[in-house]
Order: sequence, then structure tokens, then C-alpha cells
Amino acid sequence: MPSVTAFAPATVSNVGCGFDALGFAIDGPGDEITAEFREGTGVEITAIAGDNGRLSLDAHRNTAGVAALALLAALGKTRGVSLAIRKGLPLASGLGGSAASAAAAVVAVDALLGTRAPVDLLIACALEGERLGAGSAHPDNVVPAICGGFVLVRNPQPLDVVRLPVPAGLTAVVVHPALEIETASARALLGDAIPLADAIRQWANLGALVDGLHRSDFELISRALVDSVAEPRRAGLVPGLEAIKRAAVAAGALGAGLSGSGPSLFALCRDRATADRAAVAMTAAVDAHIRGGSQTYVSAIASGARVVATCAS
Amino acid sequence: MPSVTAFAPATVSNVGCGFDALGFAIDGPGDEITAEFREGTGVEITAIAGDNGRLSLDAHRNTAGVAALALLAALGKTRGVSLAIRKGLPLASGLGGSAASAAAAVVAVDALLGTRAPVDLLIACALEGERLGAGSAHPDNVVPAICGGFVLVRNPQPLDVVRLPVPAGLTAVVVHPALEIETASARALLGDAIPLADAIRQWANLGALVDGLHRSDFELISRALVDSVAEPRRAGLVPGLEAIKRAAVAAGALGAGLSGSGPSLFALCRDRATADRAAVAMTAAVDAHIRGGSQTYVSAIASGARVVATCAS
Repeated sequence: MPSVTAFAPATVSNVGCGFDALGFAIDGPGDEITAEFREGTGVEITAIAGDNGRLSLDAHRNTAGVAALALLAALGKTRGVSLAIRKGLPLASGLGGSAASAAAAVVAVDALLGTRAPVDLLIACALEGERLGAGSAHPDNVVPAICGGFVLVRNPQPLDVVRLPVPAGLTAVVVHPALEIETASARALLGDAIPLADAIRQWANLGALVDGLHRSDFELISRALVDSVAEPRRAGLVPGLEAIKRAAVAAGALGAGLSGSGPSLFALCRDRATADRAAVAMTAAVDAHIRGGSQTYVSAIASGARVVATCAS
Repeated sequence: MPSVTAFAPATVSNVGCGFDALGFAIDGPGDEITAEFREGTGVEITAIAGDNGRLSLDAHRNTAGVAALALLAALGKTRGVSLAIRKGLPLASGLGGSAASAAAAVVAVDALLGTRAPVDLLIACALEGERLGAGSAHPDNVVPAICGGFVLVRNPQPLDVVRLPVPAGLTAVVVHPALEIETASARALLGDAIPLADAIRQWANLGALVDGLHRSDFELISRALVDSVAEPRRAGLVPGLEAIKRAAVAAGALGAGLSGSGPSLFALCRDRATADRAAVAMTAAVDAHIRGGSQTYVSAIASGARVVATCAS
């Protein structure tokens, strides 16, 4: 039977001032999904590795399964598909794990079917999976997981995505401590309304960040990498958050903060050498505040989901 | 006695998605202030034209007077200065009239003194005047009134201003109907908190607008010129607001909305010919909904405050 394996990367969403609107992809960790045809119709999950048995094998209750089902339905395909999932991303890590599974699923199934579906359709179907995994459909992980790069979601529905420029040298650090934070409970901390003054600071910073990316103005990027809205209300979720951020900046990072709703933290740096120093400093600070060890990644802004293996027979 | 006359232009603030953060200067209407030395110390307002007698001749209760006093104090100057004010901008028009008076005052006094004060100091002192005129110190009119161009105020204090690029051809239309709206009462309509969902739309649009200005992507600029926060809550202040905006867009404008807190309306267009058509359509729509006539201006994004006359003797 022919099979296709697709990989989708970890993603950092929010990125300081861009709650629910900004995200970028990193190299390194990610989820891999192998899709094959099977007898019958619908989607079957045949195996899941890397989840310690916590994810459902029921396709209708699995992020990748829901995304694949949405794509088959959107394309009007009645063939049966089986998915084998290898989670490279830890659960509830703030690295866009459910988005990566959904993105890898739609890219694998699209390639298996040979349909070359438009990217907007792949995103829309992956968002159906993300809705299951994250409790709501926020495109700021799914879009960079599929498109790669540094993206701004101007509007989720109908989808309107702006691919932002990435200054030469810009390098991300991501540190994942041994904590889990459910996105839904982190969102509940925000409430439904925010002070107008905080909102004004947020959009002024987001506008400045976009300008800084266009001009490769690292000083402006640094001043703009501030979250006035989500992070102050979530700070209690990650012990030592402020100290970890200070350590990153003291080591030369332009700015740092929670990746998504955490617990992972990101920093952006002007070059790889600075990022390597910031990674050492952040990892030490994380390990000083949070027991259980951590994983650290240093990466350029990376490509999105892609087919990594095909088998024709 | 030597004298200096400075002009400061009308400004459009908010600009759709940039409440309290975005503004640009237009050519045409503005305020002019002539500064001279006088006996004694402090600031004296010797004349005000164009205000129908409504502005105070007491320098401590006059926007231009307060701004000039702030500059003299900041520079440690004890010389007396007299100001003659010619208001070219109507009061409570949404065109940054108090900012223009404050900007013209500091530029005139700086030139009279020959101090060449840094622009940040001029802005800070003009903001003291704006605080009097507008009830609070919002830099999104004062900064473009002094610097010109299309600006983003990333942070008001300490001041951090981003000068945004202006695509070739970008042309503004401004229509001023025969209404007055006090900024303070328009602000009160907003309250102190806004729905998180509205705020997210606002910062996603502002990020997209900045990207569109950098890329000269008029379609993106058009999609991003949406105010999710202030205008929906102020729509009742200007009869026919939605119809006037629709008329502008139907005539080819990229987008339209309230200038500041209104009643003036602005539109942005991709070229002068489109702006001329949009101006006709907007003026007709304004006149259909609001009695009393209107003034219409079509302008490139313009320069800021400048000395227009000096007399040495």
C-alpha cells in the first residue's frame, strides 16, 4: 500500500505582543504522521507513539483524526485512511503540539490522495483538529505549523494570513520545562474583557514589532516584545517566569516570554551566537526554578509542515 | 522685535485600527502662531483669531500657552514671550486642533529662542498643551503635527515613535461636517475595558496595516482599515457614519472612518484621482446626513510643523 509520512514543526504563538495573532515555526521537535489507504471509509488511528498512552485512538476524539476527517469531507473523498502518529512534541507544552499533529495529518493525507489542496483548505481542516485539542480554534499555531515562517493572522474566518519578513540572523530559543499547562485553563485566566489601556499598549507594540521585522531594527523589535495582556495574567503558571526572562535578556536576547500559554518559554535573538548564550542562561534559570529537567532548542525561524517520506507500493 | 511664525497641520489620529497609537498629517488646514519676545517673563496671548472668541487669552488656560510655558520651563529660559494665534482648524473637529496649536507654539518659541530643542522635548511640551485641550495627553495628534508623516506611537512615556513608510500615491480625504464632538465625552463612551475578542481583532489589523504600508500592499491596507474598538462605540455621534464610509469605499477608497473622535471623517486612497472621486462621494454623503455644510480636503501624507515666517528686527 502506498504511504506518506509528513512532519509538522513546533510553533511559538503569541510572541510577546501578538496574542492569538502571531506565531512562528522552529526547527527540531515536531510531530510525524504516516497516512495509508485502508479498507472501508473514514479515518482509523492505528498507532500513537510518544504520548504515554494519553491520546485517543478514536479518530473523532483525536486532533489528527479530526483534521484528516475534515479534509476528506471537504474534498468529497470516501476512501478510508489510516494514520500512525509519532508525537515528538510533549502534551500541553505550549509548543503547538495539537496544531502540529493536525498540520501533519492534513499534509500527509493531502499527499496520499494526490489532491494538492489549497493551503487555506489545509489550514481550515487542521483548525478543526486544533479545536478539539485546544478547546477552541486559534490559528496562531496551525498557520505557522503549515506555512512555516513568522506569520500574522489578520483574520481567522475568512482566513487572512500575512507572512512577515524575518531579519537575517533572527534566531529563536525555546525552553520546555517539566510542567503541563492546559490551554483552556490558561485562557480562562484572561477573562472576556481587558483594560483599554493594556489593549492600546498591545497594539502599539504589535505595530512596532511588524515595523521592526521589516526594517531589521533589532532595537525596536526588542522594545516591542512585551505582552501587556496575557502574560501578566498567566505569570503564576510558571514559577520564576520573570527571572527566566531577565536571564534571557541579560544574555543578550531581544526579548522573551511564554510560548503560547506556556509552560515553554521563548526568546528571540539577533544572531545564533547570542541565541546560544541565551539558551544556556534560560536553561539554567528554568532548572533553578522548576524541578524535573528541561529541553532547550535553538532554531532559525523554520519551514512548515512537509512530506518527509513516501512509499509507492 | 524679532518674531517667528510657525504653522502646524491638521492630523488624523486613530486611522481605523490604531486608537491612541496611529496618526498622520495632512496638507491644507492648520494653526499658525507668531511668537515674539516681550517685557517681563512668562507667556502672554496677545490675540486669537478664528476661534469666535471661545479660547482663553490666559496662557495657563490656553493649549498654545501651556505648551510654550512648558518649553520655556524645560529650557530654563526666563524671557517673556507673546503669542498671536490664528486658528485655521475648527474647534472639536477631530482634526487635532489643540495638537496643532500646541505644536505650532513650541516650534515658534523654539525658533524664536534659537534653541533647536530636540524633537522629543518639543513633543513632550506640546503634550502638556494637548492635555489641557483634550483632557488627557494622547500623542497620536501631537506627534504627527510635529514630525509629519504617518506615525505609530509605540509608547507615550518615555516617548517611542515609529515613522511608518508611506506607499507612493497614498492620498487622504478628510471631510469636516458642521458638528462638534468633545474628545473627552467621546472617550467616555469607550469605558475602561473592552472585550478581548475586539482587542485581538484590533491588534491583528494594526499589525497588518503596518505590513501593508511597508509592502505598498493596498489590498491589505484596505482589509486592515477597520476599527473594532472605538468607532462601533461612537457611531451614534455622527449621523450617517456607515453610509458615508460606504460611499467612500464605493468610490474606490481603501477604507474610511472617524478622524480621531470625529466628527471629521477620513478616507485613504491609492492615488490622487481615486481620492478626488472619494472626496466627492463622501462630501455628498455627509451633506445628505448632516445639515450645515462641510469642508473637504484631499492631501498627500504631509509634513509636520514648520517655521513659515521670521522677522529679524
